[in-house]
Amino acid sequence: MRPKTHIAQTDPFRWEDVPVLAYKEEKGTHFKSITRQVLFDDADHFDTQLRYFEIAPGGHSTLERHDHAHSVMVIRGSGRALVEREVIDLALHDLVRVPPQTWHQFQATGAEPLGFLCIVRRERDKPALPTEKDLASLRSDPAVASFIRV
Amino acid sequence: MRPKTHIAQTDPFRWEDVPVLAYKEEKGTHFKSITRQVLFDDADHFDTQLRYFEIAPGGHSTLERHDHAHSVMVIRGSGRALVEREVIDLALHDLVRVPPQTWHQFQATGAEPLGFLCIVRRERDKPALPTEKDLASLRSDPAVASFIRV
Repeated sequence: MRPKTHIAQTDPFRWEDVPVLAYKEEKGTHFKSITRQVLFDDADHFDTQLRYFEIAPGGHSTLERHDHAHSVMVIRGSGRALVEREVIDLALHDLVRVPPQTWHQFQATGAEPLGFLCIVRRERDKPALPTEKDLASLRSDPAVASFIRV
Repeated sequence: MRPKTHIAQTDPFRWEDVPVLAYKEEKGTHFKSITRQVLFDDADHFDTQLRYFEIAPGGHSTLERHDHAHSVMVIRGSGRALVEREVIDLALHDLVRVPPQTWHQFQATGAEPLGFLCIVRRERDKPALPTEKDLASLRSDPAVASFIRV
């Protein structure tokens, strides 16, 4: 089937025939209140996907790292991100680059969900979670220690 | 130099240290009032770029086609697009897929600029402009004929 040319936004941050998926529902301790929507996934022309993630107020993504890189743009709400040892305040349309093998976590800090686009390779490795040793190392920085949620 | 982790939006739809480029300034007759900003261009991790285009009210992009595909998301304003023979009304966050060798043109129809993200291959072919024969063929459809600007 040929992919559609036009995919309309039907409700705010929801798209025609794009399923809203629970993100990593099986790993209850490593994330909170995230949905995922795959917006573009054209194997014929790109080796990348465009996804939209939404984190509910107070929620956060998994603290993880992996070989593949993320390119992120905030399109809803505000929040914070950890990228390795850097804690970043995120506002609308801010861009975040997550290099390979970099610890990262996103948090929704406002009253609205934090929604962001994420460009990622279609073929990618599985994320690794921090070991106790990794966590101890990350927590040696007080700003990082107060940020991370595991 | 290592690319920055965080690129903040400094003014609406303008980003820190991201130059605002005139689009195809050398081809005066084939576009009108467009700027281009390259947001992500990481050769190490992706073979794609993320660009942001902005078309001033009343302006339009070049009517063209090429081998590479476009994946587009509107993030500012509203407008219309032609994709081959289909005229599409575009609202905030709508997605448009432009397959290879498909005639396409974007127009800003509202009082605000039409701003959209465009994911594209880093290595790509040059666009082709319509010949008189192509234009005659396109114009055989009245809806297309009334849309196109060349």
